[in-house]
Amino acid sequence: MRIIKPAILFAAVVATPVMAQQWQTLPDTPPTPEDNPITDAKVELGKMLYFDPRFSSTGTVSCNSCHNVMLGGEDNRPVAVGVKGQKGGRSAPTVWNAAYLSVQFWDGREPTLEAQAKGPVTNPIEMGMESHEVLVNRRLKAITGYKPYFEKAFGSGDVINIDNFAKAIAAYERTLITPDSPYSRYVKGDKKALTEQQIAGMKKFASIGCGGCHSGPAFAGPEQPLGKGFFMKFPTFSNNEYVSKYKLMEDGGRFEATKKEADKHLWRVPTLLNIALTAPYFHNGSVQTLEEAVRVMAKTQLNKDLSDQDVADIVAFLNGLTGKFPEQTMPRLPATPPSVVADIVK
Amino acid sequence: MRIIKPAILFAAVVATPVMAQQWQTLPDTPPTPEDNPITDAKVELGKMLYFDPRFSSTGTVSCNSCHNVMLGGEDNRPVAVGVKGQKGGRSAPTVWNAAYLSVQFWDGREPTLEAQAKGPVTNPIEMGMESHEVLVNRRLKAITGYKPYFEKAFGSGDVINIDNFAKAIAAYERTLITPDSPYSRYVKGDKKALTEQQIAGMKKFASIGCGGCHSGPAFAGPEQPLGKGFFMKFPTFSNNEYVSKYKLMEDGGRFEATKKEADKHLWRVPTLLNIALTAPYFHNGSVQTLEEAVRVMAKTQLNKDLSDQDVADIVAFLNGLTGKFPEQTMPRLPATPPSVVADIVK
Repeated sequence: MRIIKPAILFAAVVATPVMAQQWQTLPDTPPTPEDNPITDAKVELGKMLYFDPRFSSTGTVSCNSCHNVMLGGEDNRPVAVGVKGQKGGRSAPTVWNAAYLSVQFWDGREPTLEAQAKGPVTNPIEMGMESHEVLVNRRLKAITGYKPYFEKAFGSGDVINIDNFAKAIAAYERTLITPDSPYSRYVKGDKKALTEQQIAGMKKFASIGCGGCHSGPAFAGPEQPLGKGFFMKFPTFSNNEYVSKYKLMEDGGRFEATKKEADKHLWRVPTLLNIALTAPYFHNGSVQTLEEAVRVMAKTQLNKDLSDQDVADIVAFLNGLTGKFPEQTMPRLPATPPSVVADIVK
Repeated sequence: MRIIKPAILFAAVVATPVMAQQWQTLPDTPPTPEDNPITDAKVELGKMLYFDPRFSSTGTVSCNSCHNVMLGGEDNRPVAVGVKGQKGGRSAPTVWNAAYLSVQFWDGREPTLEAQAKGPVTNPIEMGMESHEVLVNRRLKAITGYKPYFEKAFGSGDVINIDNFAKAIAAYERTLITPDSPYSRYVKGDKKALTEQQIAGMKKFASIGCGGCHSGPAFAGPEQPLGKGFFMKFPTFSNNEYVSKYKLMEDGGRFEATKKEADKHLWRVPTLLNIALTAPYFHNGSVQTLEEAVRVMAKTQLNKDLSDQDVADIVAFLNGLTGKFPEQTMPRLPATPPSVVADIVK
């Protein structure tokens, strides 16, 4: 596992005394596990797999259904909808720049994109496949058109398996990055890249203390080895109206995964990149506007009440974190053989 | 409305005495209503609208969900799944080459792609929007990022309306065509484009009488003015095991739309282009393999029992109708404003 190396890491140039935060930008390529280097063949296959709804029991849900790359990398819903109209318990996190995060899922229960990709396919309320074995045998191997793509990506032999399925998807996801944003151009020296209000918001973001957690190149915490994660208690301050209004303590967070008391209400610090595109907000999607999300965070994490001007300025700054999205071609998916037609749950 | 002009219409060259069928190929551009010429701006907007799930009540179903252009233009399911996991009554027809068909829907109840595009959005079991007015006001106009695209496509003024929504989608759909197939290359003179077996199947297709209905450049009947349609009774012969086995008479077909007795069990003759990619087959998706579909058609429409060899040859020929799909870029969809986040049904 490589450590995330921020491309630029300088506080001196853009920082003022009041701005304790080091303004970092995303490296042009995300960290990659040593056993899964990115190749064109893997990315091509991974994109096909990512958009293929036939890896869900009903043939209706693909990775892209909930992590929509044509939108902000998720579905703009409070919680995602899986097979048979079933609703998930948490809001779908964005796939954009997930490659830079050191753990995956809201509770950080998986260390890598590879490990993450294996989860939703067999989650009964997400993609609903009975098991990885069923996925591989009745869908992945049955759709014979995938074979040459797997062989191109992973060589010959028994290469159609759940590990390579996940590796290919992860390789594709490592291309879903937006290192070029107004913010990053500003930090790299283009002083016109952010507006006056955005720069004011940037200063407030730092001075108020948002960067205590939302630091680093992805605004998701300091650099970490893949798998380590950066967690924070949310809400930290629970004696405010927001906690009950938005049901912020109903979900135990990381505790649900580890069952350790110390992990209660701990959450992976989520990235703020492209945050303007990923409403509604928080793990339960309970907050609909970025303005309100900023107010809630200031109160629950810093015990501060922000003025409307502070909120407007910080939101303006957060809008500057929306990146330039790479143009992508649509994959062509291989034909559906009769066995898969028969296997799809009616 | 223009008449479909087949690019090539010659029986003499490839026909033998036993092949009464005129082998036609798709023109390079489909017929287009006079009031909706195809423009790049309309196609660009239409593609965005086609892939946008926010025109469904729950924000989960787009045109592409059921008419998946990365697959065979539909969903490879018996019947489609709309919002809240609800199932439709009929199998989703392919969007590929729908532009060449003179009527839309299985029962041909709409004359154009424009008219078709207005239906599913407000169908309660498909995309589930309350009304076109709600669609336009609470989604289309609310997603303000669409405004410049509508203005580029339709000029300034009050251009964001249901008619232009449908026109843009129809313009995009008129780019979803596959005029280049092994079959079309063969008819145009490349004698190596089809295999020996495919040519044998082509001859059987004609001699057995499949072309009685599946004629014309799209194998969907003779050329017709847009809106006229070419309908056939299915099953024509009902005294066979297939009718009950596959429940072929449970749906009244065109009768359900017109309520005219004469329309009972009449259906639009569907295109055979890309038929190898669109299993399962028939209006109710009851038949899983192309082989069985060929047997059922021969028996129910021509009262003939085909040999296994006949079936294999005809299926080989039908595989030659799979076209070359145009490469497409993915659209970027405009940001979801808070009002739309709030309007999405949880």
